[in-house]
Amino acid sequence: MHLRLSRQHRRAAVALAAVTVVGTTSGLAVAGGGRHHDPAPDDLTAHAGATRNDGDRTTQVRKAVEGGHARNVILLIGDGMGDSEITAARNYAEGAAGRLAGIDALPLTGQYTTYSLSKATGLPDYVPDSAATGSAWATGTKTYDNAVSVDIKGQPQQTLLELAKAHGLKTGDLTTSEIQDATPAVQVAHISARSCYGPDQTSATCPEAAKENGGLGSITEQLLDTRPDVTLGGGATTFAQTAKAGTWTGKTLRQQADERGYQVVTDTAGLDAVRRADQRAPLLGLFAPGNLPVRYVGPAATPGGSKLPAQRCTDNPNRPATQPTLAEMTEKAIDLLENRKGFFLQVEGASIDKQDHAADACGQIGETVDLDEAVQVALAYAKRVGHTSVFVTADHAHTSQIIEVGSDSPGRTVTLTTADDAPMTLNYGTSTGSSQQHTGSQLRVAGYGPGAANIVGLTDQTDLFFTIRDTLRLR
Amino acid sequence: MHLRLSRQHRRAAVALAAVTVVGTTSGLAVAGGGRHHDPAPDDLTAHAGATRNDGDRTTQVRKAVEGGHARNVILLIGDGMGDSEITAARNYAEGAAGRLAGIDALPLTGQYTTYSLSKATGLPDYVPDSAATGSAWATGTKTYDNAVSVDIKGQPQQTLLELAKAHGLKTGDLTTSEIQDATPAVQVAHISARSCYGPDQTSATCPEAAKENGGLGSITEQLLDTRPDVTLGGGATTFAQTAKAGTWTGKTLRQQADERGYQVVTDTAGLDAVRRADQRAPLLGLFAPGNLPVRYVGPAATPGGSKLPAQRCTDNPNRPATQPTLAEMTEKAIDLLENRKGFFLQVEGASIDKQDHAADACGQIGETVDLDEAVQVALAYAKRVGHTSVFVTADHAHTSQIIEVGSDSPGRTVTLTTADDAPMTLNYGTSTGSSQQHTGSQLRVAGYGPGAANIVGLTDQTDLFFTIRDTLRLR
Repeated sequence: MHLRLSRQHRRAAVALAAVTVVGTTSGLAVAGGGRHHDPAPDDLTAHAGATRNDGDRTTQVRKAVEGGHARNVILLIGDGMGDSEITAARNYAEGAAGRLAGIDALPLTGQYTTYSLSKATGLPDYVPDSAATGSAWATGTKTYDNAVSVDIKGQPQQTLLELAKAHGLKTGDLTTSEIQDATPAVQVAHISARSCYGPDQTSATCPEAAKENGGLGSITEQLLDTRPDVTLGGGATTFAQTAKAGTWTGKTLRQQADERGYQVVTDTAGLDAVRRADQRAPLLGLFAPGNLPVRYVGPAATPGGSKLPAQRCTDNPNRPATQPTLAEMTEKAIDLLENRKGFFLQVEGASIDKQDHAADACGQIGETVDLDEAVQVALAYAKRVGHTSVFVTADHAHTSQIIEVGSDSPGRTVTLTTADDAPMTLNYGTSTGSSQQHTGSQLRVAGYGPGAANIVGLTDQTDLFFTIRDTLRLR
Repeated sequence: MHLRLSRQHRRAAVALAAVTVVGTTSGLAVAGGGRHHDPAPDDLTAHAGATRNDGDRTTQVRKAVEGGHARNVILLIGDGMGDSEITAARNYAEGAAGRLAGIDALPLTGQYTTYSLSKATGLPDYVPDSAATGSAWATGTKTYDNAVSVDIKGQPQQTLLELAKAHGLKTGDLTTSEIQDATPAVQVAHISARSCYGPDQTSATCPEAAKENGGLGSITEQLLDTRPDVTLGGGATTFAQTAKAGTWTGKTLRQQADERGYQVVTDTAGLDAVRRADQRAPLLGLFAPGNLPVRYVGPAATPGGSKLPAQRCTDNPNRPATQPTLAEMTEKAIDLLENRKGFFLQVEGASIDKQDHAADACGQIGETVDLDEAVQVALAYAKRVGHTSVFVTADHAHTSQIIEVGSDSPGRTVTLTTADDAPMTLNYGTSTGSSQQHTGSQLRVAGYGPGAANIVGLTDQTDLFFTIRDTLRLR
């Protein structure tokens, strides 16, 4: 079906990735001056047949270590995208020896720690959620699970998006989930609980934030106040809620958005038609009532599923053709945000996590591919215009593990046929319930452009705040 | 008990790691010219309180990208040491904000793919074993699970250790397992099955290699032929087997070693007494009948174990005081191998894998700490003498995952109290049998010194062969 790339195609993709990224400043990777072995093409069984390097890369890596500052930063987050999820997506979509053209093309890489803190004790909580982890890179402050850009005492912490806006940069916040979900919310809101999407939830769960109590309002209300130039994702349902206090009392959040000058679009055609987005008329894309439908569907992981015949993923028939992909959203956002003073754009592939929770291997893999395409768009832009740094990472590790085909696992398993025409079994073994768990492993963080060297080696998730802040000179 | 470091101690360790590695060439990390934030010491809850960077690191990272060649290479392998295993060991031994003084101190990092090949089809096998993965970096050739430095057709592939020896470098091969185990064996033997430790197994399982059939002999016999200058580990039992053909027919492998000029030692005192090791009198350390006893013991992971009270690990009472640590072996090996023409030394922390298979959290963590101490020795040497590159990685990912304390997992779980005085639950959920599985995730690979830039970004395990070969100029 889709994505059945030939080996030749995959090798071409590898070459392209090498050219596009490493070749930016020098073209050295293309010339391949130091080629030290000549593998038989496509023969993984030959000596040097599986290598990815093409001669000594010292010069290329040194050139990738760019000092100075960037005018623009694009931060792409794969929610729940640990090394296992990246590997599974690569194996499935490109083959084990292939290369994800975006995610795998970042020239500098490191690992970072993701732990959150216990609200009660301040001690590390080794298995964080997306609210605490997003708050970490958004604000540089560790906090407790559930917290959206407030510290463990509840004090709001300034976010990268807010800082960028205060310095005159344009800003964008994109996701495939509801725009009120934790990862997009951490850039635009400060609230004690991630579930406080609208005034209805906030009254009950986040009274300190409720407008009627003199608070900052729900996540959606704070989003409208923070007013990024471009906000795209799902989450239209919450906009039917009604403000309970303040200027907009009795009006729906959608009415509020309209009256406050937002351009609201709901499909690809609407998005395509937008010509500018700025503080006068910010763009708000609401492409689904809740989260955006995912790219792929496939067999469920089940007890003993590793022993069933391998299957391929298929396109999700319930994904509307009118829904933009994350790559399309990213491309449009960049077009709209580009300006002389620069921009900060966060892009989230949200449902890698959600499908991993659901033990849905095809769902998870399709969303990783979807994010990869957005990364390709970001990298292509950064290389074309310069002055742009791109960071790609995840918020926390997750459950899925690649295990032996046909093996006996206590978890739920499923076997897929990959682009290699080989079987791959994924295991989901962290929960007996309906939702698999996040895990506490350190994660890959990758970068391109000025400041990217600050992610090499071991850092913490909070370091990414300072890396981006300083790369954009936001102080 | 042991390893209850104070926060102050941990912070000091962090500072030391920064000085020792990054400060090598410039001392910039110490001066901290670009310090961009001033975290309240030890307060993880404060803004910038959890960061690991201390100002912009672009200059330090650029200086860490060293071109040219090294006289010596030390390759340290944590068997089964994926990012999850590293994180668990750090959390336990140093706290989540701490730093493993060796493993976390390598200045350059990347990820590599570890898949092996199906012997039957030549297609990728996404969950490799230690024989195929070791063969990958030892020879630059992908092969099938079970193969020791032969390709999928059974053809021997020259190893890094053999190449180094052929170029006049001294060589060493260290492990905490039996010296015949897959990871040490891949550098010194070429055989169709990893279990062919001695003539008895080879007759039955690897007839092509049996001396009586004109083959190269068992792993132990090939080890004695390859004759590294220093070989240290366990595996004495196999040396009681008797050669079945050739010069040494009817003699035990131990007799053969003695008669061929090996200095055989069996404990720390014996090791300490050795003054030189070379081709005239190579050193063979056999410190246990089988694998070396591990450092830590602790509570078993059990179904529902996540709900039991958290415990600490304790020292293994069955570990003989006369058994050297991996760090002590590494230090001694470096002393004996140092010479004008250079050396290649492989060091394996073998039982991270074996304890992960056994769902033994404390065993696994103790062996990671044990390897970390060996990495510290290697890095300290490299920085003191120069001309030395250090690589640290693993062969394949493994089962253990850090999950929510008290959660319901289908696997076996256990909760430990870490150096943070906080509970951490480890989950083993890939097998219903007695041995948990390897997993197929890409892995961290880290480097220091000339050539280390070649591990940055995404590479394959076979690239490491070429990186080390070219760093040592072995062609």
